[in-house]
Amino acid sequence: MAGNTFGKLFRVTTAGVSHGPGYLCIVDGCPAGLELSVEDLLPDLRRRRPGQSKLTTQRDEADTPEIWSGVFEGKTDGTPIGILFRNADQRSGDYGDIKDKYRPGHADYTFDSKYGFRDYRGGGRSSARETVCRVAAGAVAKKLLAREGIRVLGYVTRVGNVAAEVSDPAAVTLDQVEANPVRCPVPEAARRMEELIDEVRKDRDSIGGVCELAAIGVPPGLGEPVFDKLKADLGKALLSLPAVLGFEYGAGFAVAGMRGSENNDVFVPAPASGGREPPEGIKTRGGHAPHSPAIRTETNRHGGMLGGISSGEPIVCRVAIKPTSSIPRAQRTVTRAGDPTEILVKGRHDPCLLPRFVPMGEAMIALVLVDHLLRARTARLS
Amino acid sequence: MAGNTFGKLFRVTTAGVSHGPGYLCIVDGCPAGLELSVEDLLPDLRRRRPGQSKLTTQRDEADTPEIWSGVFEGKTDGTPIGILFRNADQRSGDYGDIKDKYRPGHADYTFDSKYGFRDYRGGGRSSARETVCRVAAGAVAKKLLAREGIRVLGYVTRVGNVAAEVSDPAAVTLDQVEANPVRCPVPEAARRMEELIDEVRKDRDSIGGVCELAAIGVPPGLGEPVFDKLKADLGKALLSLPAVLGFEYGAGFAVAGMRGSENNDVFVPAPASGGREPPEGIKTRGGHAPHSPAIRTETNRHGGMLGGISSGEPIVCRVAIKPTSSIPRAQRTVTRAGDPTEILVKGRHDPCLLPRFVPMGEAMIALVLVDHLLRARTARLS
Amino acid sequence: MAGNTFGKLFRVTTAGVSHGPGYLCIVDGCPAGLELSVEDLLPDLRRRRPGQSKLTTQRDEADTPEIWSGVFEGKTDGTPIGILFRNADQRSGDYGDIKDKYRPGHADYTFDSKYGFRDYRGGGRSSARETVCRVAAGAVAKKLLAREGIRVLGYVTRVGNVAAEVSDPAAVTLDQVEANPVRCPVPEAARRMEELIDEVRKDRDSIGGVCELAAIGVPPGLGEPVFDKLKADLGKALLSLPAVLGFEYGAGFAVAGMRGSENNDVFVPAPASGGREPPEGIKTRGGHAPHSPAIRTETNRHGGMLGGISSGEPIVCRVAIKPTSSIPRAQRTVTRAGDPTEILVKGRHDPCLLPRFVPMGEAMIALVLVDHLLRARTARLS
Amino acid sequence: MAGNTFGKLFRVTTAGVSHGPGYLCIVDGCPAGLELSVEDLLPDLRRRRPGQSKLTTQRDEADTPEIWSGVFEGKTDGTPIGILFRNADQRSGDYGDIKDKYRPGHADYTFDSKYGFRDYRGGGRSSARETVCRVAAGAVAKKLLAREGIRVLGYVTRVGNVAAEVSDPAAVTLDQVEANPVRCPVPEAARRMEELIDEVRKDRDSIGGVCELAAIGVPPGLGEPVFDKLKADLGKALLSLPAVLGFEYGAGFAVAGMRGSENNDVFVPAPASGGREPPEGIKTRGGHAPHSPAIRTETNRHGGMLGGISSGEPIVCRVAIKPTSSIPRAQRTVTRAGDPTEILVKGRHDPCLLPRFVPMGEAMIALVLVDHLLRARTARLS
Repeated sequence: MAGNTFGKLFRVTTAGVSHGPGYLCIVDGCPAGLELSVEDLLPDLRRRRPGQSKLTTQRDEADTPEIWSGVFEGKTDGTPIGILFRNADQRSGDYGDIKDKYRPGHADYTFDSKYGFRDYRGGGRSSARETVCRVAAGAVAKKLLAREGIRVLGYVTRVGNVAAEVSDPAAVTLDQVEANPVRCPVPEAARRMEELIDEVRKDRDSIGGVCELAAIGVPPGLGEPVFDKLKADLGKALLSLPAVLGFEYGAGFAVAGMRGSENNDVFVPAPASGGREPPEGIKTRGGHAPHSPAIRTETNRHGGMLGGISSGEPIVCRVAIKPTSSIPRAQRTVTRAGDPTEILVKGRHDPCLLPRFVPMGEAMIALVLVDHLLRARTARLS
Repeated sequence: MAGNTFGKLFRVTTAGVSHGPGYLCIVDGCPAGLELSVEDLLPDLRRRRPGQSKLTTQRDEADTPEIWSGVFEGKTDGTPIGILFRNADQRSGDYGDIKDKYRPGHADYTFDSKYGFRDYRGGGRSSARETVCRVAAGAVAKKLLAREGIRVLGYVTRVGNVAAEVSDPAAVTLDQVEANPVRCPVPEAARRMEELIDEVRKDRDSIGGVCELAAIGVPPGLGEPVFDKLKADLGKALLSLPAVLGFEYGAGFAVAGMRGSENNDVFVPAPASGGREPPEGIKTRGGHAPHSPAIRTETNRHGGMLGGISSGEPIVCRVAIKPTSSIPRAQRTVTRAGDPTEILVKGRHDPCLLPRFVPMGEAMIALVLVDHLLRARTARLS
Repeated sequence: MAGNTFGKLFRVTTAGVSHGPGYLCIVDGCPAGLELSVEDLLPDLRRRRPGQSKLTTQRDEADTPEIWSGVFEGKTDGTPIGILFRNADQRSGDYGDIKDKYRPGHADYTFDSKYGFRDYRGGGRSSARETVCRVAAGAVAKKLLAREGIRVLGYVTRVGNVAAEVSDPAAVTLDQVEANPVRCPVPEAARRMEELIDEVRKDRDSIGGVCELAAIGVPPGLGEPVFDKLKADLGKALLSLPAVLGFEYGAGFAVAGMRGSENNDVFVPAPASGGREPPEGIKTRGGHAPHSPAIRTETNRHGGMLGGISSGEPIVCRVAIKPTSSIPRAQRTVTRAGDPTEILVKGRHDPCLLPRFVPMGEAMIALVLVDHLLRARTARLS
Repeated sequence: MAGNTFGKLFRVTTAGVSHGPGYLCIVDGCPAGLELSVEDLLPDLRRRRPGQSKLTTQRDEADTPEIWSGVFEGKTDGTPIGILFRNADQRSGDYGDIKDKYRPGHADYTFDSKYGFRDYRGGGRSSARETVCRVAAGAVAKKLLAREGIRVLGYVTRVGNVAAEVSDPAAVTLDQVEANPVRCPVPEAARRMEELIDEVRKDRDSIGGVCELAAIGVPPGLGEPVFDKLKADLGKALLSLPAVLGFEYGAGFAVAGMRGSENNDVFVPAPASGGREPPEGIKTRGGHAPHSPAIRTETNRHGGMLGGISSGEPIVCRVAIKPTSSIPRAQRTVTRAGDPTEILVKGRHDPCLLPRFVPMGEAMIALVLVDHLLRARTARLS
C-alpha cells in the first residue's frame, strides 16, 4: 500500500530515485498485439526532458528508455512491459546542503516525518524525475487511445498574470502547441509568457501557471457511477503529479457563480456526420471509426462528463501548477533539529514548470482513459 | 472494477438505488475495539438529510441506519460493519417523464450509453441519495480520527456571488457552522447567502457555490510519495461526490499567479507547546495527545501537504459545486431516440446543494485520512 | 484489507455474523443485461441449506435472499447487486458455554488472539453460515457461465474410508448428484457413505471426506501467467472455505510418484466436432457456441490447466474436508485464562460436511471462472 | 489485472522473460529501516540457481541481482525496492523447435490461445526463471520475519516412491537441509532420492515429489476470517509456482479418513517458557522476543491455522510437484496448425524439480507471512 502502482486494469508500477542508478517501470495489463518500440516513447520523453530551452532547467538527463520485456517481434505480447531508465547526470555535490536543512516547499520534512530518515541526495523518491516513467507509460497508453480515435493534448493557458484564451480545445493542434517553448497555442500570449519567464529567471525567482488538457474522441460511457467516476480518477491522476495544487473540469470553479439555467448543457441531435472528424494527428489503425454520436450537447460546460461518466463531448480540464519551490536565492528555514537557519538550494531548476508539465499531464490522462476503456469492456454482456 | 468500493485499508462498499428498497453499506477494515452505535451515525446523517430548512429539498427521507454486523457489545469487533438504509419516500410517479427524455446535467444519457439501458426511476444509482452510505461510513471514520486528536470540519464559503472570508480555518467551530441553515460560519455572509438562495428558489432556478474543508490535528507523514499522494486521494474522494467540478488545496488556483519567493512557506521552530491545542470538540479518547510538532511553517499556502504528504499544518481544501441540475422549469433536451423535445423535471430539489454538501465532503475527507492513518502504521519497522 | 472481498473484476463483498440480524452481500462488476431474479438463487441455496436430510444438521435457517439493487425490470443493470439474508433461528442459549472456553478445531482462540475479544455467540464471523452469501453470488456467476456454455458441478468422491470411482467428470450429471443425500453420483458408493455417516452420527462423532469439482466447457486462455494462475486462484477460492485442508487438481498429489514420460498429456487433433457437446443442463442463451477446439489432449492429468492457464480440457480439482469440529461429546480444552477444562459443544451440527459443501465449492469455482472470463476480455486488442 | 503483482501490503511486481535482456522486480511496501544489501539476497538465489549439482540442470545463469532503489545507506528507506537481473545464457538456438510445435506439459498452447501468439524463445513469461524475482523478494521478507522471531524452512519429503519421515518440522535445521543436494533432512532417504534422480536422469526421464514447508515462531492472529484466510493465501502463493499440482496443510488429505474425535487438536496450557525457543538460525534483531504463548495445542493436525488464522503452532504445509515436463526424448504432439508430429525438447533441464523448488516455496511463504504481519498491524485500535 505504499502507492507505487497506478491504475486498475492498465497498471503502472515504478521504482527509482533521482540520484540512484535509475528507474524501473512496469506496465501491466497492456493488451497483446499493439505495435510498440522504443521510438514510440521518445517524442513525449523529449518534450518532458530538461534542457529543451532556456525556459527549462539546463540539467542534462539521459532519458533513453530500454524496453526489457512485454514486446516480442515488434508487438506487445500480453506480458508486462518492463522499461528501464538509467540516471546519467548525478552531480550529488550540488545537493549537499539539503542533508540537514529542510527546503521550503519540498518534501524533505514530510519524508523525514514519515520514514524517520530520507534519501537526501536531491529529492530522492519525491523528485519529479520520477515522471519519466509516467511519460513512457503514458506514451503506450496514447498508442492504444489512437487506435480508438482518441487524442489527448495539453497546453499552457496561463503563466503568472499572462493568460491565453483558447475558445475551442478540440481545435488546438500539436503543431500549435510545439511551435514555441512555452507550449501555449496562442502565439501572442506565448510570446508574453516567454518574456515573463525570462524576467522571473533573471530575478532568481520562479512563477506558476495553468495547464489545460483535452481528450477528443472519447466515446460516451467511460467512468463508473459512484467512487470511480471519470472526473475523480482524472483528478487523482493529475493531483498525483508534483506541484499541482488544483484541478477543475468543464466550467470548473466558475460554476460557483452560476445558476442552473445558465450552467446546464442542453442536449441536441448531432449533425448527420455526428459532428466528428478524427482528431488531428490521429489515424485510427484499429479499424475503429471515431465515435460518431447521434446526440450531443450544445455547449460543454460539463467538460465531457455527466454523473462522472463520459458524454462523448471533449473532456476538458485544467490544473494549477505552483511556482518551482527551488529558487536560486537564500530562504529562511530550519535544520533537522529545528533550529532557524538559511538555505541556498543549488542545482539547476526550471523557473517555470509549465512547459515540461504538458507531457506529464497528457500521460496521466491517457493512463486513466485506457484504464477505463478496458474497464468498459466488462460493463455489458458480450 | 465497477467502482463501488472506496479506500484500500479502510474500505467502504455500497449498493442501492434511490427508488429500490434501500441501500447496503459495508465498512471493512475498521480496527477492533472502537465504541460504536447507531447514535454515532445520526448527527451527520441529520445534517445530510433533506427537508432541514426551506433552503433544502422538502423530500422526506428516512435516513435511519441499521447496523447488522461488525459491532459486538458496543464495540467494533474487527469484522465488517454492515449498515442498511431503507428507502421510505418512493414517489416514483414524480419521475415518470425522465424515462424517455434525457435530463440536462444528469447522468441519464451517459448511463444509457454505458449499459444500454438504465433504471429510470429517479437517478437510480447516480442519485445523490447514495451519499447516505458515505456519510454513515464517514461518521465511523470521524470517531477513529477523534481518538487521534483529528477533527474534520467543512463550511460554505461561497454561494453565487456572495463570498465569506474565513481567515483561520482551524478556528472555525461546529457551532458556528451549524448556527445557520447555509452552514457558513460568517454570520453576515450567511444571511446574504440565505437571501440569495431564497431568491433563486423563487426564480425556479438553482445556484452553485464553494465549500471549504479543513482537517486539524493531522500528524505529519500521512500520504504516499508518488501516486497515492494525500492531495491526490483527497481530490479523488471529493471529486467522486455528485456536482463537484473543481478541487484545490492551500493556495489552490491562486498559485498560478504567484512567484516562488511569495508562495514558499518558511519553516520555523514551533512554540514550546507545539502551538497546538486539541481542536474544539475533540476529546482524545485514545490516550493520544494531539500531534505536537517541533517544526511548523509560518504560513500555510501549502494547505498542510508537501510532496503529497501531510506536514502537520491544517489540511485545507475547497471544492466547487455546480448549481442543482434539476430546476423547476422547462428545459430543451432530446428523447432517447434523439429527437428534440422539452422536459420539465418534477420532484422536489435543493435550490442550492451547498448546505447539505458539507457533511458529505467531511465524510470523504475522514475516509481518506483514516485510510492513510492505517497505511502509515506499516511505513516503518515496528 | 480485512479480507471481506473476493475477486478482482467480479467482486463479492460480504458482512454479517451467524447470530446477528443477518448478512449483507454486494456483488459488484456483474455485466449489465443478465436476466436475474431471486428464483435463480434459490436452487443452490436449498442445496446448501441445513436440515435437508438426516445427514445434515437439523437447524432450520431461513435462507431466503432479498435482492435490493442491481436488477431492474428483470435484468442486471450494471450497478452492484445488493442481497440480504435475515437470520431466523437465533438460539443463542445453545452456544453459551463457548463464551469462556475454546472449542477444539474452531476459530475461538485465534479470533481472541487477533482482535482481543470476539463475538462468542456461535462462530460469529467464522460461522459457515457466511457461505449463504457465497452461494448466492455463485448462482449469479453460474448464470453468466451458462451463457458461455460452461457448467460447474461438484460431487462427493470420498467419505471416511468409502471412495467412489468417477472415471469421467465431464459425464456426471446434476441429476446423478442430487439423486441421494450424500451428493455422490455413484449409487453404490453413495449408499455406503450414507451408512457410514449414519453410523458416525450415532457414535456422536463426525467424519471427513473429499469433494471433486469439475468445470466443463471452459475455453482455453483463462488465467494469468504468473501470480494469478487459474490454479492458484481456484486453490485460494476453495481453501477460503471452512474445513478445507487440501486442494489438488488433475493428477494432484499422485504426480509425486510419476515420471514425466507417464505424466505429460499428449496433444492431439480434436475430432471434427471438437469433441464437445454443450454440457448437460446448459442451454447457451448468449448465442455462444460451446468452445470447440481444434486441439485437445489425449488425457487430462493436467486437470485442464497448463502454465496456470486453461487448456480447454475439463477443469477437475479435489478438496479435502475435515470432520466437523463440533461433536456432541465432551472434549478437553482450556478456558480463556488458560486453565484446563472440558467442553461440551451444544447445538445441532452436521456429522459430515461433505453433502452441503458441494454447492459452496461450486460457487467458489464459478466466481473464479467469471472473474477470469472478464479479465480475459482485456487480454488482446479489441 | 494481468496478474504480475503479488501481495496486498507487501507487494511484489515483476516483468521479464527468459530470453530477453532480463527481469525487473519491484518490492513495494517494505517498512523503512531494515538493513538490506545484495548480500542478503544471494544465499537463497544460490539455492535456487541451476547447475548446483548433477541433480539439477547444467545451465549457467547469472543470478546476480542489482538493487537500484529502496535502500539508502544500508537500510530500506520506505520507497520501492527496485531489483534487476540480467539474463546471461541466452542459447536461443536450443529452443528453435518449439516455435511451431506445442511442448506437452508446457504453457505453449495455452499462451497461444490466450494472446493469439507468444514469445516462443524458451518459455517466455512462463519460464520458471521468473522465480529469481520471487526468491529475491522472499529474501527481503525473510529478513523482516527474522526480526519477529519467525523462520521459514522447506525440505523435500518425497521423490517418486522414496519418502522421508520428518516427525517434528520445527526441529529441522537449515544445515540438515543443505547437507545434501536433494535438500532432504533425513540422510538415508536423501541418499536414496539421489540415486533415484540419477537413475531417472539416465533414463532420459524426470520424476515428481513432495516438498514440506514449515514456518516456526508465527504469532497467533495472522490471517483474515473469510476470504483472505491464511491457508487460502498460502495455497494461492504456492500454487502460483510452476509445476505445483497440490497443496495441503496440517493433516491435509488424510483428514478425509478421520473422525472428529481423532482429528481435533486439544488445547492445553503452555509450559512455563511457552514451550518456545527462537527457531534455530534466528537471532531476533528487532528486539522482539519470539512469540511465547500461554495456550498451545497438544497436537498440530491443524497445521498452525484455525479458522484460517494462525494459532501460534508451527505452520506446516506440503505441495506436490510434477515431474519436469521437458524430458530429453521424443514425445508426440501437434503443430500450431493442429497436425500430429513429434517433438524433441532440447536444452538442459532438471530431472527433478524438487531440490531447486525449496527456496521458491520458502520465498512464497515468507511473502504471505510478511503481508499478513503488516495487515495485522491494523486489526486493533493502536
